[in-house]
Amino acid sequence: MAQADFPEPVKNLIGELKRLPGVGPRSAERIAMWLLQSPKADPPELAKAVMEARDTVIACPVCGFFATDAACQLCDDPKRDDQLLCVVEQATDVLPLERSGAFRGRYHCLGGKLSPLDRVAPEDLRIPPLLRRIEQAEGSIEVILALGADVEGEATANYLAGLLRGGKCRISRIAQGLPAGGGLEHADGLTLMRAIEGRRGW
Amino acid sequence: MAQADFPEPVKNLIGELKRLPGVGPRSAERIAMWLLQSPKADPPELAKAVMEARDTVIACPVCGFFATDAACQLCDDPKRDDQLLCVVEQATDVLPLERSGAFRGRYHCLGGKLSPLDRVAPEDLRIPPLLRRIEQAEGSIEVILALGADVEGEATANYLAGLLRGGKCRISRIAQGLPAGGGLEHADGLTLMRAIEGRRGW
Repeated sequence: MAQADFPEPVKNLIGELKRLPGVGPRSAERIAMWLLQSPKADPPELAKAVMEARDTVIACPVCGFFATDAACQLCDDPKRDDQLLCVVEQATDVLPLERSGAFRGRYHCLGGKLSPLDRVAPEDLRIPPLLRRIEQAEGSIEVILALGADVEGEATANYLAGLLRGGKCRISRIAQGLPAGGGLEHADGLTLMRAIEGRRGW
Repeated sequence: MAQADFPEPVKNLIGELKRLPGVGPRSAERIAMWLLQSPKADPPELAKAVMEARDTVIACPVCGFFATDAACQLCDDPKRDDQLLCVVEQATDVLPLERSGAFRGRYHCLGGKLSPLDRVAPEDLRIPPLLRRIEQAEGSIEVILALGADVEGEATANYLAGLLRGGKCRISRIAQGLPAGGGLEHADGLTLMRAIEGRRGW
């Protein structure tokens, strides 16, 4: 006599859900049960949303942010400042900057950061299109390197600064220091060192 | 100038993922990014698994466990003991029992438990089919009430025992007491009381 288990289609569904990041075996089972049993669940809507996003969303060939074939919100917006170009690692880094309201220029998503250990070399990043954009920009342009404060982010920023130095653009990078709301007692030594190094006149 | 956000199809996808149990806004975003960007992701397989499970999986009209139109693993298995009928709250309760290997009879899933607060009354549970199954069973039959040890599980067990008492079946219920591997110092008072009440001769 066989030990009973979920029917094959339920096992498949659990298997696919389990592959999603942050979804373990137990959550996958729970989500599958919810999809099959809850009156609030709408499996066709979920399946449709998955396929529609996959079929219509591309990386904008200019800036690398999420776009559709029809439009890129960032590149198509006529009100953004063409003289400011913010370089970020990932397309997802654009949203926190947008939500902060701190920046309303153009963006360039590299698609990653230099990381020899993960075998990410300069040619794996969207660097040539960045150089082309800067080359073709009209008037003076400031390139803001908004990369992470980790080793790879620093290396990537250094590499780009080296490439761009002496060119037509000014280069800046976002500040490192104490995070907002954070007291000194919670800051690590490196953060404090950066905060002291980056101090500004009152 | 509009604050940039994900394109509509990505927002829809995040919205649908956010509705899944245990998936918050940040995990939904993370899963959506993974689906759109990871080479390991296979969105069509996920969409297909969702739809196939929805389209082919039913509750078995006899036992209430997950089944397909073609077959119910539990009811169709000729080697299971017809003289033992285990009553559980949910279809999902069958699997832990199966995996424990403790039971190889038939099952009956009620589809819930009595809960006046959630407006679950006896007529909302699969009780008439249970009575019919017992009525139609050949020979002597033991009905094992394997309901939860919470208030609603107890109420449901009491209600069913009242209905079945004096009928043709024997009634039993699963034991309550110390969980396996648990020391007395971690057991709450109610569990200890049940463990003492349920003590058995050596």
